[in-house]
Amino acid sequence: MRVYLECIPCFFRQALEGARNAGLPLKAQKQIMNEFSLLIPKISLRLTPPEIARMGYSILKKYTCAVDPYKQIKEKSNSLALRLLNRLEDKVGNSKDRLLTALELAIAGNIIDFGVKNNLNIIAELKKILSAESKSVGRKSIFHYTKFKGALRKAENILYLADNAGEVVFDRVLIEEIRRKYPEKNIYFAVKERPVINDALLEDAKVCGVDKIARIISNGTDAPGTILRLCSKEFKRVYNKADMIISKGQGNFESLSQEKRPIFFLFMVKCPVVEKETGCKIGDIILFHNCKKKVKK
Amino acid sequence: MRVYLECIPCFFRQALEGARNAGLPLKAQKQIMNEFSLLIPKISLRLTPPEIARMGYSILKKYTCAVDPYKQIKEKSNSLALRLLNRLEDKVGNSKDRLLTALELAIAGNIIDFGVKNNLNIIAELKKILSAESKSVGRKSIFHYTKFKGALRKAENILYLADNAGEVVFDRVLIEEIRRKYPEKNIYFAVKERPVINDALLEDAKVCGVDKIARIISNGTDAPGTILRLCSKEFKRVYNKADMIISKGQGNFESLSQEKRPIFFLFMVKCPVVEKETGCKIGDIILFHNCKKKVKK
Repeated sequence: MRVYLECIPCFFRQALEGARNAGLPLKAQKQIMNEFSLLIPKISLRLTPPEIARMGYSILKKYTCAVDPYKQIKEKSNSLALRLLNRLEDKVGNSKDRLLTALELAIAGNIIDFGVKNNLNIIAELKKILSAESKSVGRKSIFHYTKFKGALRKAENILYLADNAGEVVFDRVLIEEIRRKYPEKNIYFAVKERPVINDALLEDAKVCGVDKIARIISNGTDAPGTILRLCSKEFKRVYNKADMIISKGQGNFESLSQEKRPIFFLFMVKCPVVEKETGCKIGDIILFHNCKKKVKK
Repeated sequence: MRVYLECIPCFFRQALEGARNAGLPLKAQKQIMNEFSLLIPKISLRLTPPEIARMGYSILKKYTCAVDPYKQIKEKSNSLALRLLNRLEDKVGNSKDRLLTALELAIAGNIIDFGVKNNLNIIAELKKILSAESKSVGRKSIFHYTKFKGALRKAENILYLADNAGEVVFDRVLIEEIRRKYPEKNIYFAVKERPVINDALLEDAKVCGVDKIARIISNGTDAPGTILRLCSKEFKRVYNKADMIISKGQGNFESLSQEKRPIFFLFMVKCPVVEKETGCKIGDIILFHNCKKKVKK
């Protein structure tokens, strides 16, 4: 999807929050806002939001001297989510439709997102997800579950695009369920190459135990989404080979919604712009298949 | 109060909303964002938020060719609020402490503010105010009522700084109550000289009937607050002569909170920055006297 003008205030907010997370002094915070301001007139409205957000984070990185401002937050998210792993697995194990429950939990885990919402009380949010009945995880306004099951049955190579640290534990539970049903499938789990917000990196995927059930690859970038023209050749090879792509989070949706590959977008609607784009409401959980033609059975 | 860095995203949001209210095409909306962006590096953090917001609205005005983008909204606010006038007056008339009720309603009327909150469902909000018991208008976290009564008794010249159109009807009810108790006082009601957001102008004060109970003056500016260095000599003469100033709304608070004149700030807390500045919560209603020394009895 293309950037909306109302994304511009949000980019400034994200840059400021990043600067504060990094503990930068007020003067540096203002300088980051100044530098980003000078980019605005050069920004094309044909770009996607993650392409522009990445520019803001590039400025931030100059000031943080390559220190990752979200490192501690990511470690905390991983550790908190891992403590919930048994309860997540039990919830799937005890449900009538295990795959559906695993899917819903994976989308609900997408609530862990510091790009959109800061000061998130992770523990409270995650406990809410687990204490709630599956049906109350969020309103399912778009939910192409039948197509998802069909595509999963047929697929040989599945590419799973990760979103945030911590959330990866919820992804793990879904991938475990896919693995249980289809042990023979090739599953690739793609993370970011370098830090951006709280997006999952190789180390997060390993800490959350995804390396035991999927092949972890990097997309080669530090964009808060999947910007194909910036991705590594290795990643694009897997992307083009995959006959099913599972894309987590708003950032991946924002950057890939116009693409032609068979993508299932799993995310929670988190901002008014994505409300407009999808016709859904903030808090809704989405399982959206981008291909109009039916999956071959 | 000085501007906070988190005001910057909010200025962009306001500029965009103004451009959309004016029905400007996407290209002009983007150009306004571009022009405002180029100002950011030049902005001093020693300025108050209304000083910077005014810069954004000045850019907007160039594109709207002096057409007031909020004219219709203001007319609608006035007309809706006028329909509630009898109920407001009854509520005051039937209360044990008429002045207190009139004060609370005047602050509650401050909910009418398109600078902070767009898409405001005015009817619903106003009806909520009226259907609620006085005590539920909002949490009174700072409420210098005793000082207010003391100052009112002593004052000869009262300057009332208006905020928004529509809200002026609520101001009228408070001024009527002051007039009823103290028919001899000189009351000046200051509006903006030229349009900015939905701030009240001379025509709004007249439509809402304030001209019958107070002397309407202009502050000589088009700033969304009271920026003294920009105000007219005539306004400053009244400002300096007044022995009690009643300042409505966040914008006037943001621009006058450091001033030394005896000001009572009446407003509803509407954003996280003013939460920080006051130590109160969004939705709280504030009656704040800025002078530490006691009012002479």
